[in-house]
Amino acid sequence: MKKTSISLADGRELMYFDERDDVSRDDADLRPLTPTQTSSEIRYDELLDRWVIVASHRQDRTYHPASDSCPLCPSTAGRLTEIPAPTFDVVVFENRFPALTAAGGEAVAAVHSDGGDVLVRPGAGRCEVICFTAAHGASFSTLDHPRVDLVMAAWIDRTIELSQVPGVEQVFCFENRGHDIGVTLDHPHGQVYAYPFVTPRTAAMLTSSAAYYRRTKRNLFDDVVQREKDDKTRVVATNSAWTAFVPRAARWPYEVHLYPNRRVPDVAALDDRQRAGFADIYLDLLGRFDRLFDEPAPYISAWHQAPVREGRDRFALHLELFTTRRTPDKLKYLAGSESAMDAFTNDVAPEAAAERLRELG
Amino acid sequence: MKKTSISLADGRELMYFDERDDVSRDDADLRPLTPTQTSSEIRYDELLDRWVIVASHRQDRTYHPASDSCPLCPSTAGRLTEIPAPTFDVVVFENRFPALTAAGGEAVAAVHSDGGDVLVRPGAGRCEVICFTAAHGASFSTLDHPRVDLVMAAWIDRTIELSQVPGVEQVFCFENRGHDIGVTLDHPHGQVYAYPFVTPRTAAMLTSSAAYYRRTKRNLFDDVVQREKDDKTRVVATNSAWTAFVPRAARWPYEVHLYPNRRVPDVAALDDRQRAGFADIYLDLLGRFDRLFDEPAPYISAWHQAPVREGRDRFALHLELFTTRRTPDKLKYLAGSESAMDAFTNDVAPEAAAERLRELG
Repeated sequence: MKKTSISLADGRELMYFDERDDVSRDDADLRPLTPTQTSSEIRYDELLDRWVIVASHRQDRTYHPASDSCPLCPSTAGRLTEIPAPTFDVVVFENRFPALTAAGGEAVAAVHSDGGDVLVRPGAGRCEVICFTAAHGASFSTLDHPRVDLVMAAWIDRTIELSQVPGVEQVFCFENRGHDIGVTLDHPHGQVYAYPFVTPRTAAMLTSSAAYYRRTKRNLFDDVVQREKDDKTRVVATNSAWTAFVPRAARWPYEVHLYPNRRVPDVAALDDRQRAGFADIYLDLLGRFDRLFDEPAPYISAWHQAPVREGRDRFALHLELFTTRRTPDKLKYLAGSESAMDAFTNDVAPEAAAERLRELG
Repeated sequence: MKKTSISLADGRELMYFDERDDVSRDDADLRPLTPTQTSSEIRYDELLDRWVIVASHRQDRTYHPASDSCPLCPSTAGRLTEIPAPTFDVVVFENRFPALTAAGGEAVAAVHSDGGDVLVRPGAGRCEVICFTAAHGASFSTLDHPRVDLVMAAWIDRTIELSQVPGVEQVFCFENRGHDIGVTLDHPHGQVYAYPFVTPRTAAMLTSSAAYYRRTKRNLFDDVVQREKDDKTRVVATNSAWTAFVPRAARWPYEVHLYPNRRVPDVAALDDRQRAGFADIYLDLLGRFDRLFDEPAPYISAWHQAPVREGRDRFALHLELFTTRRTPDKLKYLAGSESAMDAFTNDVAPEAAAERLRELG
């Protein structure tokens, strides 16, 4: 694996991750790009005890461009894209319209309440795009094993590097797939967010696992995974390094959680055997999601990693994969109960979802 | 106001709320309806410390019926609907395909973990539909003041009655409006959920307000609302009993929180002046949402009420009104960061949203 870092015309960083060590990546970005103005800030919601990102400059960003102007395809002589090279394996670059920006942008002064609480801070962090392949019409599920290993190497690289950026508290690698969930670019790609706060979901898991440890002196994630393995009714797939199951309290019609059999805090901590075993089981799961309905299911695939500084000894890295579709022609919408109250109703019993996913293997 | 309760053919309860006291509601439900099978349960997500409703019987429910078969219109001789009467003011009835069901349905035995935690319980509760008018093509924003007062009376009635149902911990009155957010019936209607648990959103607010009280001996809601009133930049509308503002950390492009000026725990605790002043300011707000874009904005309108048993002295009743649309042709999707991490990015600065909503008055 070889990593080559270059600067795009507007100063953003782009990194090539290549399967071969002998490639040379010296194509320059020839576009007349001017740097974008960014003014991201994070605001503290005192009622919910969580941060919200406000990035009001992003309204002009690219929206459903025609496929002949895909900015994630390699550049050709006649058409310059985000990626200067004529081909690539895996590429990571800074989002031109990021929700979070490196310090040094248009800094927002911290705003305090009467009581001294910080209510508004600069939205310091980083938003990156990761292209999984140069093939516009491909999907993650059609990648071969060496390519998945390379994507994993890129996730690990970005997790390590972004964890060292001052102010970054959590690194989130994810993929949104399908127009149904708002994906504006068809080219197979994911994203990496480096947040200046611990996300609400992760904070909730850390609170639960800390309370569980105080009560039982055991790790909550370990016990939840072990119970699923013992119970077996919701297990979808396993190999020697990983276990995939539908959680007992799944929120989505088809939702699978994938855990390494030995607990680690983040992708950077995966050992060689875990890294090598990932492609096999993840491609298997994505194949099942592709076959769920008449056409490949839209999905969100989210790596839940420990924060950079806290709870690393008790968090368990895992991937949550779910589709927002409940039948071929019915979407699961987030309406009042879900959007306003966080109270989810799942129309598909998790045991039935697991059985169906097992049959699709 | 007159309330008349009848039984539908399958045993569900239907209540007429009439503006006039002299109406008679004795039309029988003549449909050959058989009772539906329901097997709702709630499952505890140990990692997130919250309950999820699993109601797997609901997959067959009515989905986008043609408007000539609207089940929420009054019945006619040739077409029988959910409402037996030939006309009505406001009607509330039990949902035929409820996510939560009265005790006595197909009861699920409680399932416990090794440690004795309850992991699965019957989904005891109630889901009701509330029709705001017999006029199929109307919307809440076109109701007149007496009708809004009647809807408020129905919300109060349902909150009081459902709070007394054994096992019910929280009553949630809400309206989803627009296909964009998954509304399957165009007829103006809302819903009432009586949950057997405190919703995650409310639990989070109670935790924050308890911590704030311990630190300051003051009420968090009171201070947040007072700061918005003092600051003024995000206030959208006020009258003598209510104040509406865009919250500083709004998650949605256009989001307004409406508080009574004197704190109460739920709609049942509103005094006469607050009840009388609601129609005025709420219709004003809905009118602004109707004028935001070329066509009326889709929205979720959610009454946040104190739970039945806990935190009633420190919770503040308020209504949260938000649209999922960020521009006339762009939706705010809940993709990876929002759906997987609860980390929201808002593309519209709350101050700009407030200014725009003020201009639309």
